[in-house]
Parts: sequence; C-alpha cells; structure tokens
Amino acid sequence: MPLRRAIHKMLYFVTGSRDKFAEAKAILPDIEQFEADLPEIQSIDAEEIARAKLEEAAKGREGAFFVEDTSLYLEALGGLPGPLIKWFMKTIGNEGLVTIAAAFDNTKATAKTIIGYRGEDGDVRFYEGSLEGSIVSPRGEHGFGWDAIFMPHGIAMTFAEMSNENKNENSMRQIALKKLKAALI
Amino acid sequence: MPLRRAIHKMLYFVTGSRDKFAEAKAILPDIEQFEADLPEIQSIDAEEIARAKLEEAAKGREGAFFVEDTSLYLEALGGLPGPLIKWFMKTIGNEGLVTIAAAFDNTKATAKTIIGYRGEDGDVRFYEGSLEGSIVSPRGEHGFGWDAIFMPHGIAMTFAEMSNENKNENSMRQIALKKLKAALI
Repeated sequence: MPLRRAIHKMLYFVTGSRDKFAEAKAILPDIEQFEADLPEIQSIDAEEIARAKLEEAAKGREGAFFVEDTSLYLEALGGLPGPLIKWFMKTIGNEGLVTIAAAFDNTKATAKTIIGYRGEDGDVRFYEGSLEGSIVSPRGEHGFGWDAIFMPHGIAMTFAEMSNENKNENSMRQIALKKLKAALI
Repeated sequence: MPLRRAIHKMLYFVTGSRDKFAEAKAILPDIEQFEADLPEIQSIDAEEIARAKLEEAAKGREGAFFVEDTSLYLEALGGLPGPLIKWFMKTIGNEGLVTIAAAFDNTKATAKTIIGYRGEDGDVRFYEGSLEGSIVSPRGEHGFGWDAIFMPHGIAMTFAEMSNENKNENSMRQIALKKLKAALI
C-alpha cells in the first residue's frame, strides 16, 4: 500500500552523515536533511532503535521522517553485533571480528539496512535490504568500517575492494532505499 | 566532599529490580524506589549512560536520584561487553563469552559497578566499585547472568559458587553503594 503524504509537507532524512544523505538524495530527490545525531537506545532490535529515534526526531516538528541503520550480523553470535556494530568497531575492530568468527568456526554474516519511516500521522513502517556474505581477513582499501572484512555471496571481493559506485549499485542500503521510494509513489 | 541534600527531600533509586533495591536499602535505609525501566542510550561508557538515565529520571520530578549499572569487561575486548553485557548474555551467553576469551587467549576480566548520583541541583557524581578476576568455564548454581563464569582474584570460586550473602559481602556493587553512603553523610 503506497504511503499517503500531504503535498508540500517535507520528508526529512535524519542523519548526521553527508555521504548517506547524498546517496539517499540521488534516489529520493525531494528529501531534506535533518542533520542530527540523535542518541540511540540500547537494543539488538534495529526496528526498536529506529522507532525510538523517529519519535525523538518528530517531537515538536512537522513533516515525515526517515532514519537508516546499517548493521552487520555474525551468524555465530546470534544477533550480535547487529545494531551494536559501531561499539565492536571502536573496541576490537575488524581483526577482532575475524578472530571471533574463526573461534566459532562460522564465518557466515549478513549485512542489513533498516529504514524506518514515520509519516505525518505517526504511523511507522520499515524497509529492509540485506546481503548474505562471509567474514574474511581484511582486504581492500576503499570504504570504511567493516567494508574490508565483508564479502557478499557470489562476489569474490570485499566491499573495500569495490569502487564506491560498484559497492552502492546493489548494496543493502540501495535495496532498502528503493523499497522506500516504491512505497512513497 | 559530602553531598548536601535538603532535609525531607527524597533520594530515589531508579531501578526496575526489587532485589537491587533491597540490597541498596540495607545500606541506605532512607531511600525510595523509583520503579522504572528507563531506556538506556547506546554507549560503552557507563558514566555517559548513567548521566542520560538520571536526566530522564529527573524530568519534571523533585528529589535526588541514583542509578546503578553493573558491567563485565573482558580485557581482550578492550571495553566490551562493558555496559552492553546484557546483549551478549541474550545472544551468545556464558558459553559464548568463554569461547571468545579463549580465542583471544586472555581470560582477564573486570566486574564493575557504577553508581550515578544526581543531586537536587542537577550536579552528577559517580561512585565505582570494581573487582578484577578471570573468565572460567561455567561453574556453580547460584546467582544469575554471568555469575557462573566470573571468578574474582584471590577466591577459588565463581560468583555462582558463592552464597548470595557471601557474594554480596564484598561485591563491586557493595563497594560502590558504600562509597555513595559515605558521600551522603
């Protein structure tokens, strides 16, 4: 069911990242950036985190809002790091994640983007994009974060070995953004 | 420096746990429970989490407040799980933590309680209790959470092998509570 949105009311992408905003704007030209680094609640449920963030963003403000969260899930860790990936990156980093995957003898991983959309009426919907892949020893110079250790299935390159263009073409974030776009028509 | 607190104003312990409240009340008989499970922000800095929680608790309410957070830090993980321990318990549990400690060939761990206190004037102070120890294979039937895999230095028993009384006698929580009590006099 398409989302109804009052004409002339704005759709804001709540993000502190210019790069993420530019990527989304290429798909959704009418959006505006709501440049805020809102605190995130502790949870391993990306939808719960997105919902709380949307409520915070919408407080006392008009318009529709969306947020995005991109997470890495290691099958061996049953839900971790998930949305808590940034704390793993800040502490043990890529090498630590590789050590953990090896310890559990399971390198299966999923890269997942969740987009949470909150309409003017307060209704919240989610759009997901995900890619299955493997954790490998760090390879490649592009990208950031865990790009160097995630290799999507069917591609013999890590995200960090792909050009940005190449990576974005079929990324989990693009899949989620395109689902949001389709719902907004 | 002792904390000045207006007479007749209440000191609230913000916690959803009856057990934790009872333990604190035995040391600080005048406190009241503010029974709330306030959402916690994502961070690996226990003081930052406590500060945000205290601000939330104090919104539109009179009195002084304190919160406590007990975390487990694995030296190998450089700050993790820390305040994120509950998500590790919900996913990989004790066995997973033991596997990780073994993979990094480092079983050193610290159990730490942080108490955050917010006075009527909005001033926030912290009181810490910590115990050094090791991660061991699960042993013992008492306690909860990670009690079965944490063995404090100098004691040949995990927390789960001690009676509650025995465990509480010199726990990191008791150390922190006693520091708060000393500051309140």
